[in-house]
Amino acid sequence: MRTDLPQISTENVQGTNVFSPDGNQIGEIDHLMIDKRSGQVTYAVMSFGGFLGLGHSHYPLPWAALHYNKDLEGFQTGVTEAQLKNAPQLSDDSWSSREWESRLHQHYGVNPYWA
Amino acid sequence: MRTDLPQISTENVQGTNVFSPDGNQIGEIDHLMIDKRSGQVTYAVMSFGGFLGLGHSHYPLPWAALHYNKDLEGFQTGVTEAQLKNAPQLSDDSWSSREWESRLHQHYGVNPYWA
Repeated sequence: MRTDLPQISTENVQGTNVFSPDGNQIGEIDHLMIDKRSGQVTYAVMSFGGFLGLGHSHYPLPWAALHYNKDLEGFQTGVTEAQLKNAPQLSDDSWSSREWESRLHQHYGVNPYWA
Repeated sequence: MRTDLPQISTENVQGTNVFSPDGNQIGEIDHLMIDKRSGQVTYAVMSFGGFLGLGHSHYPLPWAALHYNKDLEGFQTGVTEAQLKNAPQLSDDSWSSREWESRLHQHYGVNPYWA
């Protein structure tokens, strides 16, 4: 795939690397969550494959906590291991709970996408 | 998957049905295109599997030309067969060409997502 383009296919997002601010690869994007009505990407659900010794397999990050870095050909985030470990638990009801979404955004210190 | 939720996983978008305004299934979503920086879904790339006798396999529709219908558990569009047949051709350069994007949005009569 061409990574220099301003747009990316959802088929190619799966597996895209995520880096720390100092450029270390910390994990990858498993899939994205999308708001059906607005078409806005709301969360990148990450997998860490043992990089940080995290027990759970999937960690949703607010989209606003990620930034695409052309040079690294991947996303960067300032989120810390401690933040991930203490994040609000994900359940099937999370995607329809504004209360859970509010806590998650607050936890990572980013503005809600719906405000 | 639960289709009643306000959010959907990119893993589940592939294969989601697309219906005409009168509720006939006309095709399905193959994948989405996403603007890397803003996280906005820009296009739904559709496949028609012979429904309309269309020769090409992939037709990108501006996201704004689709609306999610909870009852149908899929997307609806008012786009016609004639519009699809006469749409600007898709190439590898399309995703980095504002000129092509402008023509496509104009063709389907929807406002550009970047304006």
